[in-house]
Amino acid sequence: MENIIIKARPIGIIHTPFEQAEGTPIQPVKGKGAKGWVEVDNAYVEGLKDLDGFERIWLLFWCHRASKYKLQVKPYMDTQVRGLFATRAPSRPNAIGMSCVKLISVDGNRLEIEDVDMLDGTPLLDIKPYAAKFDHFPVTRCGWIDAADHQGQTKADNRFFQEENK
Amino acid sequence: MENIIIKARPIGIIHTPFEQAEGTPIQPVKGKGAKGWVEVDNAYVEGLKDLDGFERIWLLFWCHRASKYKLQVKPYMDTQVRGLFATRAPSRPNAIGMSCVKLISVDGNRLEIEDVDMLDGTPLLDIKPYAAKFDHFPVTRCGWIDAADHQGQTKADNRFFQEENK
Repeated sequence: MENIIIKARPIGIIHTPFEQAEGTPIQPVKGKGAKGWVEVDNAYVEGLKDLDGFERIWLLFWCHRASKYKLQVKPYMDTQVRGLFATRAPSRPNAIGMSCVKLISVDGNRLEIEDVDMLDGTPLLDIKPYAAKFDHFPVTRCGWIDAADHQGQTKADNRFFQEENK
Repeated sequence: MENIIIKARPIGIIHTPFEQAEGTPIQPVKGKGAKGWVEVDNAYVEGLKDLDGFERIWLLFWCHRASKYKLQVKPYMDTQVRGLFATRAPSRPNAIGMSCVKLISVDGNRLEIEDVDMLDGTPLLDIKPYAAKFDHFPVTRCGWIDAADHQGQTKADNRFFQEENK
C-alpha cells in the first residue's frame, strides 16, 4: 500500500448540546430532535446554494476527541466484541464520522440542524445532500445490528473517547 | 475557524474496472453489477471480523484524481448550476467520496464488491457497515435531485477530473 498522507482542512464547525461523550446519542436516529447548528467557513458560503431544498444532509466530520482505535471493539449496541469496520465506533484509523441530520434552515453561513449525534466543536469536513435515490438501499442483512435492536444502549459513554474534563 | 490540518492515511486501495472518469457510473445505484474489490492493508485485517454479515457497506475514499473544486457546479444529472454542497460532485474542498456498495465476500484482506462507482486505484479511508436502522431516512424533499430523475446522465465525464491519459 502506498504510504501517502492525505491532508484535509475543516470547512466549518458543528455546534451541538453535547459537551461530553457520555449521554450523546450514538446515531442521528437515536438523537431525534436534538438541535445543533453548523458554522460554515465564510469562504465556502457560495457552495451552500440549493442545499435548502433537501430535507436531510450528510455531514462528514473529524471525530476529534476519539481515542486511538482498536481493531476489535464492543459496540454500544452490543454485548460482544466485533471487528471495528463492522461497527460505527468513532475511534478508527481515519476517524471520519458521517451523520445524516435534518436540515431546518440555511441562513448565510449558518445551518440549523436537528438529530445531531456529534460532540460540540466537531470539525466539519464535508456536506453532501441526502438523496433517497442514492442512499436508500433495500437490504435484508445488517449483520449483528439486526439482532441488536432492543438490547444495548442508545447513548454513548466514554469508551471511544479521550479523557474528558481536562 | 481554526486553521488545523487533519492527516489521513489510506487503509487500502479500491480496485474497479474504471480507469477513466468517462463512462464511470456516477453513483452505486447507477453502477448496478459493476464488480470491484478492496485490498485492505494487512495491518487492519483483524478489524474486518463480522463485516461479512452485512449485505452492503459504506466505503469512504479519497477522490484522488478529482480536479480542484469550484463552489458552483453543473451536476451530471442536471442542466443547471448548483451549489457544490448540494451535489455529490467529487471535486470538493475535502475530496472525500462515500459509496454504499454491495459486499459479496470477505477473504482475508480482500473484499469482493459490486455496484462500484469509483476509479481504479482509489485510496480507501474507511469502511462502515450499512445499517438500514441508521441509514434509511424517510424523506419527502431531495431538492433538485427530485426533478432530475429522468434527465441528465448516469455516467460520469471529465468535468470533475484532472487531465487523463497522462
